[in-house]
Formats: sequence, C-alpha cells, structure tokens
Amino acid sequence: VNAGIISVGTELLMGETVDTNSGWLAARLPALGVRVESIMTVGDNLVGLVEALQTALCRFDLVLTTGGLGPTEDDLTREAVATAIDEQISIDPKLLASLEGWFRRRGMRMSKHNIKQAGIIPSAVALPNLKGTAPGWWVEKKGRVIASLPGPPVELCHMWECEVEPRLRERSDGVVLLARTFKTIGLAESTVDEMVAHLHGTDNPYLGIYAKSDGIYLRVLTQASTRMAAMELMRPIEEGILSILRPYIWGVDDERLEDVVLNLLSEWGITLATAESGIGGVLASTLSTDPAGDPYYLGGLAVRPEEIDHVPGVTPHMISMFGAVSSEAASAMAEGVRKWFGSDVGVGITGLVGSEQEGIGVEVGTVYVSIAHVSGTLVSKHDFPPRRELIRRRAVAVALLELGQYLKGLSIP
Amino acid sequence: VNAGIISVGTELLMGETVDTNSGWLAARLPALGVRVESIMTVGDNLVGLVEALQTALCRFDLVLTTGGLGPTEDDLTREAVATAIDEQISIDPKLLASLEGWFRRRGMRMSKHNIKQAGIIPSAVALPNLKGTAPGWWVEKKGRVIASLPGPPVELCHMWECEVEPRLRERSDGVVLLARTFKTIGLAESTVDEMVAHLHGTDNPYLGIYAKSDGIYLRVLTQASTRMAAMELMRPIEEGILSILRPYIWGVDDERLEDVVLNLLSEWGITLATAESGIGGVLASTLSTDPAGDPYYLGGLAVRPEEIDHVPGVTPHMISMFGAVSSEAASAMAEGVRKWFGSDVGVGITGLVGSEQEGIGVEVGTVYVSIAHVSGTLVSKHDFPPRRELIRRRAVAVALLELGQYLKGLSIP
Repeated sequence: VNAGIISVGTELLMGETVDTNSGWLAARLPALGVRVESIMTVGDNLVGLVEALQTALCRFDLVLTTGGLGPTEDDLTREAVATAIDEQISIDPKLLASLEGWFRRRGMRMSKHNIKQAGIIPSAVALPNLKGTAPGWWVEKKGRVIASLPGPPVELCHMWECEVEPRLRERSDGVVLLARTFKTIGLAESTVDEMVAHLHGTDNPYLGIYAKSDGIYLRVLTQASTRMAAMELMRPIEEGILSILRPYIWGVDDERLEDVVLNLLSEWGITLATAESGIGGVLASTLSTDPAGDPYYLGGLAVRPEEIDHVPGVTPHMISMFGAVSSEAASAMAEGVRKWFGSDVGVGITGLVGSEQEGIGVEVGTVYVSIAHVSGTLVSKHDFPPRRELIRRRAVAVALLELGQYLKGLSIP
Repeated sequence: VNAGIISVGTELLMGETVDTNSGWLAARLPALGVRVESIMTVGDNLVGLVEALQTALCRFDLVLTTGGLGPTEDDLTREAVATAIDEQISIDPKLLASLEGWFRRRGMRMSKHNIKQAGIIPSAVALPNLKGTAPGWWVEKKGRVIASLPGPPVELCHMWECEVEPRLRERSDGVVLLARTFKTIGLAESTVDEMVAHLHGTDNPYLGIYAKSDGIYLRVLTQASTRMAAMELMRPIEEGILSILRPYIWGVDDERLEDVVLNLLSEWGITLATAESGIGGVLASTLSTDPAGDPYYLGGLAVRPEEIDHVPGVTPHMISMFGAVSSEAASAMAEGVRKWFGSDVGVGITGLVGSEQEGIGVEVGTVYVSIAHVSGTLVSKHDFPPRRELIRRRAVAVALLELGQYLKGLSIP
C-alpha cells in the first residue's frame, strides 16, 4: 500500500505555519505497511486542491488530507473531495444535531457558518471529532481511500488514534516496514558515510544517513511480509553498524538525549538540579518536558550573566576574579545548586551567547559545563559558533551528553 | 511569477524530520513578487525526484529545491536536476579545489565521497556555501529557473541571503505581494469569521482566518504593481478589521507575545524576574530567546511543585495551608522572586501539569499566574485541558498576555 499526504492551507504556502501534521502522520504509516511516497501542500483554493486530489488518487492507494475542514469560507477540503470524486454534498441531519449539541453543551451559540461542517457525500463516513467541531471523512471509492482529517494537531491526533489507525490496521495487506535509527555523535557525516559504505546501496534493507543538531543519524529500513522476516533482514546491517560505530552511538530510535539522562537518574534513583547562566532555562525546560523526569529533576535557576551571583554558592568576589563565564563559575554553580536543592547531582552551565554582554573576557560561543556529585566536580569547556540559538541548543546537548556519560560511569550500587 | 518548492529527503517522508526549510523559503517569496503554489516533499529516490522536478518545471516559473546536496550516496538532487533537464554532470576543477581548501583549512581529510559535490552542469552556476561543503546550483533553462539549496537550515539561510534572494530581486517582474497578520485572542474562530464576513470573498485583497495556539489570526494579502498600490488595496480591509476587532488584537505580523512584553519593559526601562512551578522553565526560556530581552529579563527559577518552597518568599507553612497550586503560592512566588532579583516586576506561575503529582488538591490543568509590582500584586486562575505540553504552553501564553496588559496600563512616566 502506498500513500500520499496533502496538507491544505494557504498559511502553509505563505510560510505562516510550519506543517507538523504530515510528518506526524508519515511517522505512523510504515508500521501499518503503508509507504508514504509524497507529501504535498496546497493552498485554500478549490481548483488547486481538486487537482492535487485527482493526481494523488491516480498514484496512491491511500490519500490522507489534513486541514480545511473548519467553518470558514476558505475551508474547502469537503468541497474538493466531493468534486474530485464527482459526488454531491448534502447536510446530514444527525451530524447537524450532534454539532448543535457540541455548542449547546458549552453554552455557546452555533454560528451559521458551522452548518457546512455537517456536510457529507454518499461514499463518505463521518469520523467523529471529540476535540473540536469538524468531523473527518473516510471515503472509499473505486478501490481508493481518502481520509480527511482536521488541521489542529490535537484533533488530528485523536481522530487518527480512534478512527483512522484502526481502519488502516484492519486493511493492512500484511507488509511490514521496520525502521531503526542509530544516533551518533563525534563524527562528521562524510566520515560516517565512508565507515559504513559497504552497508550501503541496497533498497531492502535501506540505509540512510542524516546530519542533525545532536549528531549524525543512521536509519535502517526493511520491508517483509512478517515482522520476524523484517527483523531478520535488519539484523546483519544492524550488527555491521554496531561493530563499527558502537563507541559513537548515544541513542536508538526516538530516544532523545534527555531520555538517556532521565533513564539513568531513575535507574540509580538519584536527583538532579540545574543552574544556567546565559542559556536562559533551555536545560530546565528540556528536562521537564517528559513527566518521567518529575521524580528526579527537582528544578533549577536560569539567570543572565550579570545576575550570576544570584545562583547559590556563586559570590561577587569569585566573579570579579574569574569572570561569569569561567570554569570556576561553572563548578560553583553546579555545587551550589546541588547543595541548595539537596539533590544528588548538580549541573552548572555558563556561556556567552551574545556580544551585547561584553566585558566578560571570553569569545561569544564559549560555554563551560560542570557536573557536581558527592564524588567530585567535573568541568568542560566548549567553543560553539557565535549564534545565540545554536549556542543555547548545543550547550544543552553537550551538558546532557556529558551528564549521561557521567551517570553511566557512576558506581553507586 | 509562480513557484514550487521541493523538499528532498526520505527522512521527511518517514516523519523523522520536520521540514522547516520550505516554510522559511515560502515566507520570503511573496515580497519578491513570487507566489508559492505548491510545496512538495519527495524521498531520496532518483525516479521520484526527476518526476517531481519535471512536473514542477511544467507548472512553475521558479522551482526551489532544498536538501539532497550532501556527500552521501542517497544525496541525489544534482543527478535529478541534470536528468530532468537532460544535461550531463562533470566535475568542475575550480569547485573541487575550493572544496579541498575547505577541508584543509579545518585540518580535515576530504573523503572521496565529497568529490561529487564539485559536480556541475552546463546550465548551472554554482552558488558558494560559506557554512558547509555543498555548493548550491542556480539553473536557467528555457525560461525556467531552478535554485537548488542545501538542507541544513544554517547553510540554506546563508545561501538564500547571499545568492538567491539578490538574483530573484533582480528578476522581479514588478508585482508586489503584501501581507498583514492581525493576532487576536478571546474569540472563537467561527465568531471572528462571522464578525468579518463582509470583508471576505475577494481574491485581491484576500482574507484568511487561522486558529493558532495563541489565538485567532487574520491574514490579509494584496497584490499590485507597486508597493504603494498594494498598500492602497490593503487599507480599507485593514481599517475594517481594526474597527471591529481592535479590543481583541494583541499583535501584528510576526510579533510574538514575548516581543510585546520585552518592548514594553524596554519602553518603561523596567526589569523582570520569574518563578515557575510545574511549568519547568518554559517562560524563562521563552523570555531569553531574543537578545532584546537581555537588559530587562534578569532570570528566574523553575521548580517542580514538591520543591516550591525553594522559591524565595514561599514557606513550607504557606504551602501546607494553601497548597503548591494556589493563589497564595503564586503571589508569594511573584513577590519573592521580584525581591530576590531586585527587579521591578516579578511573575509567578504555579500549575499542575500531570496527575503524577497528586495530593495537591486541584485538577490537572489548574494554573495560577501572578504579577507583582511596587503598586501591588495581581493573581488570575486558569483551567486548561489536562495535557502537559498544552498546559505548559498555554500557561506561558496567558502569563505573557497578562503581563503585557499590565505593563500597558502602568503609569510610570
């Protein structure tokens, strides 16, 4: 089964909104044996949308659309699907009643513009939307399927899980696609490519190499009629990659650097606190994204370099001697925040992210990372290219990587 | 002039990477009189890529590609462009020498895989890449233009600004597209749609309405032969929107909530500190993204609810009486952090983002926001849907919105 995804919205063509929906859908289709061959964005324009749908229906077994199901005049997906397969829309009294109920339960008046959201065509089944007003459509005609989903990510996710994914699973033709990603750090893309060149060049398994902000990724794809057979195809290339690149691999599949750290904290049962200067709380917000961190990540401080002496353990005297971006400041931050929160481990990061904060005596892009633990305090120095967002992101990636390596080496039983 | 954008990469079709490049390019084209009619993603597959290029060359004056210029075996954009316009690639000795120089200057050995990055075709001019190894291509043939840019955003941005944008500006046929976005909060999408229904329905000016996480956006597009004429077309619809929606508009164009706050802080010359419980530093990291905030945003604390008494001014006694997610805790945080940092304004946010932190006595999604200033302390309560990331984002949006409104009403001269 192959598929095309069509994202609908002039705001996407204008660069107003980044389309995260099609990637989200694309990531979920291979496990259902569906190969995505094209992702396309079209504007809120009936002619263009009908043309895109007709082209996609010629090429793909499954066409997914996102967006354009809202109540406004430029929401045209229903009209376009109807036109593309030559059917007429009529208002479904049951859909209309449920729409009116939705507004009534919220004490809101339903606008007459919402009426069109109760439209349906003979080949379509309406997909309930528990998170919003726009029902989706599941259309089957001449052996092709169109699934039209709403644009707001929350509505899309929910409708996918409750309505679309189960239907696709039922129709799955027994082809399984398996993917595995190895995430490395410390090597250049072309070096990685050369090291694994002998594993390249086949379609199944397929090996792709991608440069990311947290290192070089290797992605292996296999396809077979059973999961077991797909795994068998995967094994030799997987072993090849591991035997060559093991020391550089920090994670697998959708593992993120913060997950590695949180898992290790949880394994050891130890707690963490952080202090950031110049990095603005990016580490704190990264560590608190996943609820898995709640038992282990206690919290942190984030200050601008001029306010660094507000971090417990950092004194104005120390700053006047060594500077706010220094090895001494970083270790004082890590030790101070560890003591203040009473955590097992403390991390301190101090960096210079912009030339506005002059007179600190280091180059923009200089970052010190320190890890403090009862067994001692480590500090490392890094020089990143002088761009604010890059420095912030890289500093956090490096701190997480070093923290992970440190935690792996701990010998607390 | 119309255009199509093609993003190249199997990782995009697999949902591994979100394509931010095409939106970035799309946002920059209207000002050059270029209307983007399609954005398409294709895999690292020669046949599919050639087909996409040929289709695009039939429909569009300008075709932009991003990605697939790297050194690895699945980087196929050069080969596909050559095939699509029926030309042969040869290695350019000058490009090769400059590539070798790039590696030499970095003390690195050039991999033989990089050699193909020195390839060129007769109709192409190589576009220098100062941020990486992959030169771009500017191809002119039979009245069509193909501009092939690298995938890494930093390389793409730089090459766009230095090489592509100036060439497009030179060719610009004198049609100017003008866009303006009004950002509202407090009204439902269908209500906004109804309120401005009489402004809808023309192609030029064109009005679009979009629901976003920080409110409903109205976007007006006009097209004319001069900027002045485009502005004239814009004016009546702009005035129409303002006269109806002014009280709900918090920003215009690419203004973000944090920009509104930072501008007001800078206008008054006053400083800010923050304390977050349960929100994990998202406010701190938002406020420190833009260097414009450095003189005014001093820093903050972010703790999990169990550690809330580490926020200066919050006592264990107070928490045992009122709870960590309470109006009392929020105002103590705002006042405490204001005093601790010695800032003019303090903001406290305390919320319950997950059911793991039970026994706090409120529902998941409850958030209190407090603003403390010499003239007094305000607190507001909010109930968001019980999803962690949504609560974190909405809490920060609401805090920024309230802070902006508060700062607007200040009467410090």
